[in-house]
Amino acid sequence: MNIYRYEENPLITPVDVKPHRDDFEVIGAFNAGVATYNSETLLLLRVAERPISTDPNIVKAPIFNPETKQLDIINLRRDDERYDFSDPRVIRNRTQGSSSFEYLTSISYVRIARSKDGHHFTIDDKPFVYPSTSLETFGIEDPRVTQIDDTYYIYFSGVSPAGIGECMVSTKDFVTVEHHGMIFHPDNKDVLIFPEKINGKYYALHRPSPKSIGDPEIWIAESDNLLYWGNHKHLLGLREGKWDSGRIGGGAVPFKTEKGWLELYHGATKDHRYCMGAVLLDLNDPTKIIARSEQPVMEPEADYEKKGFFGDVVFSCGVSVEGDIVKVYYGVADTSMACAELSVKEILDSLVYV
Amino acid sequence: MNIYRYEENPLITPVDVKPHRDDFEVIGAFNAGVATYNSETLLLLRVAERPISTDPNIVKAPIFNPETKQLDIINLRRDDERYDFSDPRVIRNRTQGSSSFEYLTSISYVRIARSKDGHHFTIDDKPFVYPSTSLETFGIEDPRVTQIDDTYYIYFSGVSPAGIGECMVSTKDFVTVEHHGMIFHPDNKDVLIFPEKINGKYYALHRPSPKSIGDPEIWIAESDNLLYWGNHKHLLGLREGKWDSGRIGGGAVPFKTEKGWLELYHGATKDHRYCMGAVLLDLNDPTKIIARSEQPVMEPEADYEKKGFFGDVVFSCGVSVEGDIVKVYYGVADTSMACAELSVKEILDSLVYV
Repeated sequence: MNIYRYEENPLITPVDVKPHRDDFEVIGAFNAGVATYNSETLLLLRVAERPISTDPNIVKAPIFNPETKQLDIINLRRDDERYDFSDPRVIRNRTQGSSSFEYLTSISYVRIARSKDGHHFTIDDKPFVYPSTSLETFGIEDPRVTQIDDTYYIYFSGVSPAGIGECMVSTKDFVTVEHHGMIFHPDNKDVLIFPEKINGKYYALHRPSPKSIGDPEIWIAESDNLLYWGNHKHLLGLREGKWDSGRIGGGAVPFKTEKGWLELYHGATKDHRYCMGAVLLDLNDPTKIIARSEQPVMEPEADYEKKGFFGDVVFSCGVSVEGDIVKVYYGVADTSMACAELSVKEILDSLVYV
Repeated sequence: MNIYRYEENPLITPVDVKPHRDDFEVIGAFNAGVATYNSETLLLLRVAERPISTDPNIVKAPIFNPETKQLDIINLRRDDERYDFSDPRVIRNRTQGSSSFEYLTSISYVRIARSKDGHHFTIDDKPFVYPSTSLETFGIEDPRVTQIDDTYYIYFSGVSPAGIGECMVSTKDFVTVEHHGMIFHPDNKDVLIFPEKINGKYYALHRPSPKSIGDPEIWIAESDNLLYWGNHKHLLGLREGKWDSGRIGGGAVPFKTEKGWLELYHGATKDHRYCMGAVLLDLNDPTKIIARSEQPVMEPEADYEKKGFFGDVVFSCGVSVEGDIVKVYYGVADTSMACAELSVKEILDSLVYV
């Protein structure tokens, strides 16, 4: 597989982003949704910020308060034995189950970066979509964008003590936003809406994380209005011993090829190394799998992919396709944004048909 | 609270039900949905059956095979240290997380019991709705029925290795059934569809069990066709130290009163004592809570409620309302069916308004 990583990588890093408050610092500008608007490439960045702590023994957890519309800051002592701070992203309560968390160490929102050449980006001064409801008090994460006609549907994980589900807004101008609430209930993330109706229905990939039984795997659902979803089917599972043995989920918004819908998904091992693979779905019935990657299409190799806030991660939320070239914008190490160009034909040729 | 438990309780027990296979035994006839059809009360029983094991060291796990349409039987040795058999309902793999299971010890399906007086039931000879898809290989559980015009919507937990989600079928005659697939993705159960549109939308209560963060609590969603659901909102939470501190979920199908929609829900402590409580929702906007039980409306007291396959459980999936009398049909001890009559007014008077 020929992978052309841009010389400018990483394209956007936290230092490029002005914090939205003076007492906060930006620790991530990553996992961006991708849109083309007015001949520009827009990256809808997930910006993660945390309150600046001057005391190394104090960990601060920011929480959006839906009543005051302000952030509340919780102060936790690092030597408080009730809490587990070993994962830099979350704070776990040792008295609860090992997989659940109690606070996040940062709050994420969506901010726009704009580019005429796809390499050099100018970042908006202010947040574009910010937490706004009781289902988003811990932030909104990993936005994806699906354009249908002149409307851009932007959807992301809404995180709160009630759970992690997928919320959606829409815009026609990247200024005014209409809110559509939570479209997939917890525990769910990594939703990807196909960009057109297929046989009269809209389709979306989604990734439940069930508690009772079942693994974090890719499902598919259908809709007739993009707001209400049903006929859920299990689509793609983990593979023991492979790069996608721990968890998988949708990555970039699926795009059409001659051979089928191509989805660049993420897969991680149980020790959290995130790679990118591909799955090809039937053009007329995306609940049917045609082919799948045996080996990753792309894996963390560059220094900026291996090191960062949470290293060894390549994670795409969107691509831009021009002929045989797919420009894969992707988050690296839960920290920054990068881009690589690949050949659609080479990806298709690399797949194993089922 | 005056509770009139029927003298005939339990109304239906496992010995009343003929197994659907000679090599199986019925261990439960419980958690039935309730419908009125042709002047008869129908109980849509959850019947649980297990393969008869003649060797006390062999535990048999039945699994529906969607390709052969037959059951496969897995044999596990009780002294196999990889497995935990301490919960009679499930078999856990000790190498996995403590909350997840690997097999069920029985397979459940839906069978109809019919009555002219609501006290004495005749049970159909054969299953009515049986597992039929790859999302139902471990069975279908806890059916509820919502009648809208002349159509009865029957929905239940579909259980499989992929997860527990809510599946739906519909019928007009309790003979022919139309399948609608999975309407709520895993992890979800205890769905209750309101019996009419409210301000132009259908509504349903549901109960996700999120893994990352959040508790097993009651949510509400909306729909315009009963098949696709969205605008998910968190509705009702656990209460520390009370009878509903461990898990809650919808119980009976909500019914209309002068004061609002009355939902009899189930709540359990962390040590699995299941009681019944009530919540009153706004007639014109069921996402608004008007009042809630402080104390249980009903709790396991009778011998048949306290002892059984899984004791200390009262669990209603449906009621029949006549004037001020609500006939609460309810599963007892995950084993049998019982009925109690309560006064709607007394329930409403017992609630604490928020």
